[in-house]
Amino acid sequence: MKEIFSRRSVRKFTGEAVSPEQLEKLLRAAMCAPSAGNQQPWEFIVVRNRETMGKIQVFHPYSRPLDTAACAIVVCGDTIRQRYPGFWVQDCSAAIQNLLLETVHLGLGGVWMGVYPSQQRVQDCQQLFRLPQQIIPLGIVALGYPDEQPQPRETYQPQRIHWESWEEV
Amino acid sequence: MKEIFSRRSVRKFTGEAVSPEQLEKLLRAAMCAPSAGNQQPWEFIVVRNRETMGKIQVFHPYSRPLDTAACAIVVCGDTIRQRYPGFWVQDCSAAIQNLLLETVHLGLGGVWMGVYPSQQRVQDCQQLFRLPQQIIPLGIVALGYPDEQPQPRETYQPQRIHWESWEEV
Repeated sequence: MKEIFSRRSVRKFTGEAVSPEQLEKLLRAAMCAPSAGNQQPWEFIVVRNRETMGKIQVFHPYSRPLDTAACAIVVCGDTIRQRYPGFWVQDCSAAIQNLLLETVHLGLGGVWMGVYPSQQRVQDCQQLFRLPQQIIPLGIVALGYPDEQPQPRETYQPQRIHWESWEEV
Repeated sequence: MKEIFSRRSVRKFTGEAVSPEQLEKLLRAAMCAPSAGNQQPWEFIVVRNRETMGKIQVFHPYSRPLDTAACAIVVCGDTIRQRYPGFWVQDCSAAIQNLLLETVHLGLGGVWMGVYPSQQRVQDCQQLFRLPQQIIPLGIVALGYPDEQPQPRETYQPQRIHWESWEEV
């Protein structure tokens, strides 16, 4: 699938705005992810305010892409909305991956900046966005129109594949 | 993107085998996922032996799909292979989501069966597949040719989107 094999993290953007229709598409894609017990524990904060992006940069060490990003989407998990405790991380990760693949499909680019399980980043993020205690920020996607075109790279490692058991018997 | 919006969990399969070429495609897709610090902490166990699938069913409460699956892929994280502790769960979740989307692209279907963070399932899985201690099974994907065609469903919830802050100010 083209989007999967061509996707690379994009960290430099043109500054051109992303339309409300594109944003909706991205968020629709995110919400199509599977989730444990179909609990769909995700919440999204869309940030287009440059001042707020600057405030993320104060606490997040790898947030340089926000210098030029059109927007940031903070993907959070609602820890109350889960039937199976602890699975929200996987559910929200699948949602982020869908969102990133949809950026490629729309001719946009993005990069996943990790928040959880760094307790300091979680706390700073909760404070900045006035999140209730049960809402845990998992990651922040910086996105926009790409101003760099990283080429697909070879990531296939057959030695990571094991047949039937860790060591074949 | 068609695969994202049409994907549903498939739990019944025809029993027809999945080819080595298809398996390689799926695993290539998984290994295209982004990972924290590009550490690519994933490892995969491919299970086609029916007896082994039966042994998974002994400990995994939601593994009924293995009754008819052509194979199971156990996706694990190598906790030693990470520069940023704890991010392996997100990395491997993104890999699983890629793999699931690629099943759709290939006309196959699959379902994500959670393992971690259930300590009992992790332990049973480690024992069954003789995993070293640092290799943690995150989830098992049951896959094959679909024998059911769940229709796409509406999962978009605009109330999960917040603008600039949790409560708009």
